[in-house]
Amino acid sequence: MEKVDVAIIGCGPAGLSAAVNVKARNRSVLLVGPKLCSSALHKAHRVNNYLGMPGLSGDELRKSFIRHVREMGVDITQVSVSGIFPMGDSFQLQVQDEFWEARTVILTTGVFAAKSLPGENTYVGKGISYCGTCDAMFYRDKTIAVLADDVEHEDEVRFLAEVAKKVYFLPKYEKTGELLPNVEVLRDKVKEFQGGERMETLLLAEGGELNVDGAFLLKEQMPMAQLVNGLELVEKHIKVDTNMATNIPGVFAAGDVAGKPYQVAKAVGQGQLAALSAVAYVDSKKGAPV
Amino acid sequence: MEKVDVAIIGCGPAGLSAAVNVKARNRSVLLVGPKLCSSALHKAHRVNNYLGMPGLSGDELRKSFIRHVREMGVDITQVSVSGIFPMGDSFQLQVQDEFWEARTVILTTGVFAAKSLPGENTYVGKGISYCGTCDAMFYRDKTIAVLADDVEHEDEVRFLAEVAKKVYFLPKYEKTGELLPNVEVLRDKVKEFQGGERMETLLLAEGGELNVDGAFLLKEQMPMAQLVNGLELVEKHIKVDTNMATNIPGVFAAGDVAGKPYQVAKAVGQGQLAALSAVAYVDSKKGAPV
Ligand SMILES: Cc1cc2nc3c(=O)[nH]c(=O)nc-3n(C[C@H](O)[C@H](O)[C@H](O)COP(=O)(O)OP(=O)(O)OC[C@H]3O[C@@H](n4cnc5c(N)ncnc54)[C@H](O)[C@@H]3O)c2cc1C
Ligand SMILES: Cc1cc2nc3c(=O)[nH]c(=O)nc-3n(C[C@H](O)[C@H](O)[C@H](O)COP(=O)(O)OP(=O)(O)OC[C@H]3O[C@@H](n4cnc5c(N)ncnc54)[C@H](O)[C@@H]3O)c2cc1C
Repeated sequence: MEKVDVAIIGCGPAGLSAAVNVKARNRSVLLVGPKLCSSALHKAHRVNNYLGMPGLSGDELRKSFIRHVREMGVDITQVSVSGIFPMGDSFQLQVQDEFWEARTVILTTGVFAAKSLPGENTYVGKGISYCGTCDAMFYRDKTIAVLADDVEHEDEVRFLAEVAKKVYFLPKYEKTGELLPNVEVLRDKVKEFQGGERMETLLLAEGGELNVDGAFLLKEQMPMAQLVNGLELVEKHIKVDTNMATNIPGVFAAGDVAGKPYQVAKAVGQGQLAALSAVAYVDSKKGAPV
Repeated sequence: MEKVDVAIIGCGPAGLSAAVNVKARNRSVLLVGPKLCSSALHKAHRVNNYLGMPGLSGDELRKSFIRHVREMGVDITQVSVSGIFPMGDSFQLQVQDEFWEARTVILTTGVFAAKSLPGENTYVGKGISYCGTCDAMFYRDKTIAVLADDVEHEDEVRFLAEVAKKVYFLPKYEKTGELLPNVEVLRDKVKEFQGGERMETLLLAEGGELNVDGAFLLKEQMPMAQLVNGLELVEKHIKVDTNMATNIPGVFAAGDVAGKPYQVAKAVGQGQLAALSAVAYVDSKKGAPV
């Protein structure tokens, strides 16, 4: 494999936007990721807040993003990178037992969610949602359950309670904050999600059942931030400046892995910034005396 | 006018994206700007680097952005805001001789270019371009003129000279740097652009004429950053943190006015971030004791 100008790790919205912008500046690019490119987007049943493309399912959006990259002549290499090692003026990427070489690296590896519950995958987008602010409006005046991993999700719980008629709230933590009167806190756990076409019932660990119109699963998502040694993090996300540079010269990051909010437009914008910064970095090195 | 949660000043890509995202969070929004919303986008003859929507003219992109906002039920109020004044927990916006009120403000006012020359507007996208790196490829092995306001544009001049056969270079400043041999520096000024369907001729102040295939006008663009007193700037742009907050609590900024690069995807991503930050700010104030 010849040395590329920019290697992009992950082909979700951030990585695809980075690839389009590196290519628009006429630099060579290696773009790697799994077949689906973004399982997050694949799962989103409707994305209404990416400017210019309302009313599409996440999967339709995902497909048109990939089409754009293909039209620009960029291939997506279906591999997983297991480590990245700085070597003088460039980087070695470990792919299985090979090493590939790049002048700069953009990390767009996203976040991954904790393990799912029985029935959960069946009903994503059919009664199960991961994002209160995205999907609340589908449950106006309805009865919902909300499962939350951490107290930091309570803003979302409050927002859902403003919209829904009744909220069964199952926090995984002890002390809850102030909640609206239509929120009933249950100290129980969900064992399984059941239903027909749509999810209808939560089976609880202590034997009870809840009949609901929908359930929101507000769970922690872990950033995939561990590929490069010595990368500085802020909590669990990669620390970036306003140009998407990390603490390691030549390494940039964008999208969910670089921090919240976890959103498509933000990922696309940051992908562009990271690309332009990486191109400027490559140019500065090419210009510099060796 | 009743007090809105979020006032957005300017309806280019950054302002429109902010509006979509405030609305998705179910907060009230005032969106103001001129009829075209973004004259920058209106002028761009082809935008290929906004993920998911390749191959469109800037104007087609502009129209689908506006359509999205309309579909979300947001109106665009065709006024210009002449000043913004913090008043306790909210902001007064001056519109002609009225004052409108908002809990938070997002500045998405873009940049504006210096005054245009006779014939310039007629031939934008038909022989006149403002962006070397965007449009150089259309002039491979052709003869072009390049007008530059400032020495900082010389990187772009060098890039154009690599691609074009011959470059007539008309800098507005004294001392030029090292240039390729196919660049001829002319100490003259352009009086007018002339042509048929496309621009063909530059009439010069000292009476001469240049016949060219195209002209690049590399001019300074001034950020519209002067609406709020006491706003901190970095050079001429509004200073923002990674959440698009300015130094004034409750005032956010996004897009070109918040710094380079001047690009659509970056503006859209920052508009989303500013919207989510503004909504969080409104919520924190509503929750707080008065
Ligand atoms: C159910 C759901 C609904 C959503 N709804 C919305 C919505 O309405 N609006 C909105 O704006 N956002 C929404 N989102 C969020 C949105 O999908 C994410 O913000 C977006 O996909 C982030 O893009 P990304 O490129 O940063 O990461 P991702 O899309 O997660 O892509 C990262 C990719 O990198 C790959 N990768 C990781 N490590 C490696 C490695 N070592 N080698 C190779 N590849 C690797 C991953 O496998 C993954 O494919 C939703 C998400 C979910 C799950
Ligand atoms: C010829 C050309 C080609 C381009 N090509 C590309 C390209 O290929 N790819 C790319 O990504 N980008 C391109 N761009 C850049 C892109 O158009 C800008 O980055 C983008 O429009 C910035 O969006 P914005 O919302 O920040 O500002 P703008 O789009 O400039 O919108 C700001 C709006 O705010 C309004 N406003 C200002 N002050 C006030 C006030 N006081 N009250 C009310 N309204 C106000 C302005 O009138 C304007 O309508 C190009 C630009 C030009 C000029």
